[in-house]
Amino acid sequence: MTLDNNWFTEVADSIGSAFSLKINGKLEEVQTPFQKIEIYDTTHYGKLMIIDGYTMVSTADNFLYHEMMSHPVVYTHPKPEKVLVIGGGDCGTLQQVLKHPEVKLAQQVDIDEQVTRLSEKYFPELCTANNDPRAELHFADGLKWVKDAADGYYDIIIVDSTDPVGPAEGLFNEAFYRDCLRALGEQGLLCQQSESPLSHVTLIAEMKQAMRSAGFAATHTYDFPQPLYPSGWWSATLASKSGEITSFREDAARHKPFATKYYSYARHTVVMEGVPFLNK
Amino acid sequence: MTLDNNWFTEVADSIGSAFSLKINGKLEEVQTPFQKIEIYDTTHYGKLMIIDGYTMVSTADNFLYHEMMSHPVVYTHPKPEKVLVIGGGDCGTLQQVLKHPEVKLAQQVDIDEQVTRLSEKYFPELCTANNDPRAELHFADGLKWVKDAADGYYDIIIVDSTDPVGPAEGLFNEAFYRDCLRALGEQGLLCQQSESPLSHVTLIAEMKQAMRSAGFAATHTYDFPQPLYPSGWWSATLASKSGEITSFREDAARHKPFATKYYSYARHTVVMEGVPFLNK
Repeated sequence: MTLDNNWFTEVADSIGSAFSLKINGKLEEVQTPFQKIEIYDTTHYGKLMIIDGYTMVSTADNFLYHEMMSHPVVYTHPKPEKVLVIGGGDCGTLQQVLKHPEVKLAQQVDIDEQVTRLSEKYFPELCTANNDPRAELHFADGLKWVKDAADGYYDIIIVDSTDPVGPAEGLFNEAFYRDCLRALGEQGLLCQQSESPLSHVTLIAEMKQAMRSAGFAATHTYDFPQPLYPSGWWSATLASKSGEITSFREDAARHKPFATKYYSYARHTVVMEGVPFLNK
Repeated sequence: MTLDNNWFTEVADSIGSAFSLKINGKLEEVQTPFQKIEIYDTTHYGKLMIIDGYTMVSTADNFLYHEMMSHPVVYTHPKPEKVLVIGGGDCGTLQQVLKHPEVKLAQQVDIDEQVTRLSEKYFPELCTANNDPRAELHFADGLKWVKDAADGYYDIIIVDSTDPVGPAEGLFNEAFYRDCLRALGEQGLLCQQSESPLSHVTLIAEMKQAMRSAGFAATHTYDFPQPLYPSGWWSATLASKSGEITSFREDAARHKPFATKYYSYARHTVVMEGVPFLNK
């Protein structure tokens, strides 16, 4: 059987794999000042958002990514009141962050307003917290936003970006991490999606080195399944301003006041253990 | 970019996804009395074994599957002395089982000797325990093997089979599970690969229903990443002869006398928690 026009394929040539989803059709194609956004209707994964040819989010599997980009860092921070999400225009990470009653302010800063407008249209279930009084949606350059932030303003910065090519490239280097460090409070934590533990081992090592060079005291990489992304096995990396990342708010995580489909207290203990071969 | 002859693709049409690996070339193609086996040299996943068009094992990612098909069940059983692996002809599960000093006998029963011969040639690192005095490699029909087994002979039966179509179909039904139940001791555990938690929810439910109809007291499904298999997110299901599956040998798992790349004590606590939406 061959993959014809009834399939969308993302070829990750540099890591020798490709992933395809069967589609009923294309629902939208928009060229914004920043990127090309496409929306497909798939046969088994619900709606699918593509940016510049890369899979971003699907209805069926985004819960894995959004839960694991939010709850581990929020329950690891001792007092998570002010949270900045850079990228994340689909609003799924913002939504999870706002499930935490401790959070008093959650800002989402995506460079491209069209990502959010299309998410509101095709992924409304991810946008249910957009009108939360604690939520702020800004459409601006995340790099500049962090540079302009007041010293120590944020407790948590979550970098929910596309891959480290194109518009997001600047979100993976030492200068950006230095700005994040300054904008974080004393117990501040950075959480960034960090590609595949199977296929991007070198990239992850370089990213962590850049975080430490920028002055972060410790970095810690953990993993989760993510069907839509190359290899289906994904990671995020935490960076701490003030010390090793060895504990989390266990009682709060055990008794979280909201339901999750993947994240749990037990999975958080695995987050704290991390991926040994990426945390040497 | 299109996928040309430099790629191997497995299309999982019934679940609307496909996974491709870039290849340097085909190293072997053998039609056995049971199936067609192909070996490819990939650009980034090492060697790749294909059976009847389905991905079976790659050098790069098999550790996930083999560790998670063996250590969870072995550390969950209170006294795992006699272990039967049905299928598993690549010898990777057998190898992991034999890392446990408590195991006194580990039999691998695969219907097709060629799977093992090709694994010895292309995946020698999986076959290092084949000459362990506790190992027995049999090439026979697993269904008949279990039917002929003495009552209560095994502590653990691991079903490391291909998908529930073709030669492996009979390994997913009530009659087979009834034979397994009889062949297991009082505290016996069955562990079977059970496809994708994202894409095979109905199949998993039917499989668990068949296990319970056969007389198993409890079933429990857990998950792990597996890049090579459809969706990249995979599961295994435990079935217990004598009661709920709620505890494991925690001290032994904490102090396991061998290294693993993925399995750990913390991950075992997640195994015990299982996948909530598959264990209702």
